[in-house]
Amino acid sequence: MTNRPRIALTLGDPAGIGPELAAKLMSRPENRRAARILLLADRSELEAAAAQAQVDVPPIGADLEDGIVLLDDGSAPTEPIELGVVSEAAGARVKHQLLRALALVNEGEADAIVFAPLNKTSLHLAGMNHEDELRWFAEELGYTGTTSELNILDGLWTARVTSHVGIQDVAALVTQERVVAAIELLHGVLRDSGLASPRLGVAALNPHNGENGLFGRQEIEVIRPGVEEAKDSGIDVDGPLPADTIFLQRDRFDGIVTMYHDQGQIAMKLLGFEGGVTVQGGLPVVIATPAHGTAFGIVGENVADLTSTQNAFDVAVAVASSRASGS
Amino acid sequence: MTNRPRIALTLGDPAGIGPELAAKLMSRPENRRAARILLLADRSELEAAAAQAQVDVPPIGADLEDGIVLLDDGSAPTEPIELGVVSEAAGARVKHQLLRALALVNEGEADAIVFAPLNKTSLHLAGMNHEDELRWFAEELGYTGTTSELNILDGLWTARVTSHVGIQDVAALVTQERVVAAIELLHGVLRDSGLASPRLGVAALNPHNGENGLFGRQEIEVIRPGVEEAKDSGIDVDGPLPADTIFLQRDRFDGIVTMYHDQGQIAMKLLGFEGGVTVQGGLPVVIATPAHGTAFGIVGENVADLTSTQNAFDVAVAVASSRASGS
Repeated sequence: MTNRPRIALTLGDPAGIGPELAAKLMSRPENRRAARILLLADRSELEAAAAQAQVDVPPIGADLEDGIVLLDDGSAPTEPIELGVVSEAAGARVKHQLLRALALVNEGEADAIVFAPLNKTSLHLAGMNHEDELRWFAEELGYTGTTSELNILDGLWTARVTSHVGIQDVAALVTQERVVAAIELLHGVLRDSGLASPRLGVAALNPHNGENGLFGRQEIEVIRPGVEEAKDSGIDVDGPLPADTIFLQRDRFDGIVTMYHDQGQIAMKLLGFEGGVTVQGGLPVVIATPAHGTAFGIVGENVADLTSTQNAFDVAVAVASSRASGS
Repeated sequence: MTNRPRIALTLGDPAGIGPELAAKLMSRPENRRAARILLLADRSELEAAAAQAQVDVPPIGADLEDGIVLLDDGSAPTEPIELGVVSEAAGARVKHQLLRALALVNEGEADAIVFAPLNKTSLHLAGMNHEDELRWFAEELGYTGTTSELNILDGLWTARVTSHVGIQDVAALVTQERVVAAIELLHGVLRDSGLASPRLGVAALNPHNGENGLFGRQEIEVIRPGVEEAKDSGIDVDGPLPADTIFLQRDRFDGIVTMYHDQGQIAMKLLGFEGGVTVQGGLPVVIATPAHGTAFGIVGENVADLTSTQNAFDVAVAVASSRASGS
């Protein structure tokens, strides 16, 4: 079992449903056998999470076939963190453990990271000042290449050319180079996830696919040449296609590249993305998290649904395993 | 029955399913009783449409309680128009009858227009050079006020602040004045459709509702002040709300104002807008059409679904009746 990928796992925001979900995830022996789980938490936190989830504390020990590795650094706060609310203390806990997970990656000690839901406001209160987690992770990993948040639902992956920027800045950021980079990024991670020849679609930027240039020329001058360039390199990709119907054709595609945040997210959220997975794509290792949030309203009720977290874990294991085997 | 609204009806593109749908619509006696249908077609076209739909030719006569008024100007082409394909001849037929319908409105002889599906390419071949039907209709009606294409599905209406323009032009066009005008337009037509106090939602322009100004300041400086201005005038309106979740809250709203074309259309098409209705909103009279197209692939098979056309007709009758009664 030495080939099991090493997955750094964090409990997420201690005020949310993250600890419960992580405990449920670890309580499944098949998960512990599929990966060597490196848990960034103190034992007291693991025990509290298991109690919340009403599961056994998982066996601990790197030498066990189905044990987890508990990386307890004795840093748990002495003051209890209030459940179900935003706080700097909760954000600080998230930040501390994510930084440890990223350090493991930098040291070559972890092949992927899965983190349970965090609360952005708490994280910002604790001093995480980046516009999103992806930029923060990239900086911590010293990575300056192309990145894209990837959203996954029911086997459909989306990447985007621009992300957390205002609409007024989108058009100028949609360059042929960035379009190609997003296609290649999505193609690469889909191959790593196990698809030999992923089928990709690319959305247009403008309404009606630009209506032959009448409503913007990026389709003609930027996106189509980018798609052709990717095709020439052997990628199975079609586009640009009208953004308001490309998701109706989702059965044709394993992945869709969108031009801006809401173009993909409006569709994915209507399709049920609360149950999906977000991957911080492009980074040297896969970093996956459930798409939903901390669900403060149901903390402590042991009703949180594991599906999304399980899917995040499965994606991380699949990609990390594939990369480790050099495929 | 003299209070029946006068609905000018066209058969749409003769190469598509429009004639079949119009014949089915007119074959329902309740439709002929709900409105005085002014059909812009030659008798030969009406008979061909009825044959396609396998329905009786409706009774013709302005003095009948359930008769239609056939406005046959003897203009039907002598050469047959090929079914299921784009052609200038088909587009010219659409253009001719829509211009007659618009003339009826200008002369005070019609209270609303319903048109069966047209094919934009054929219409352009026939010399309709406007960017969309709405601008064409506005020009023919000499109307220079605020207009918006409205999309209706399952009781939810959408209006938009910008429409057929490239993404690079959207942000500059989103002004407080236009936001207020779109809210007022949607509010007005929903009231005319029979709702005493329509509940409206307004989408943000930028991702994450602008993330407190981090991803664009239009939410703070333009949209929210516009929403407040509309509220102050007594309209029940909430926003701006994140564009990628506002449609998940659609049960809260009778109408949603979006900032640009795809923001609404991505959602509406995923929700099944093929079965919806498009209204050319803001014009002096309501002009409604089914959301779907000419469906060239099923022409002549008599399998076209009337739902969308019936809904378009019902919206036209409701709004025209309400306006006629001065409510």
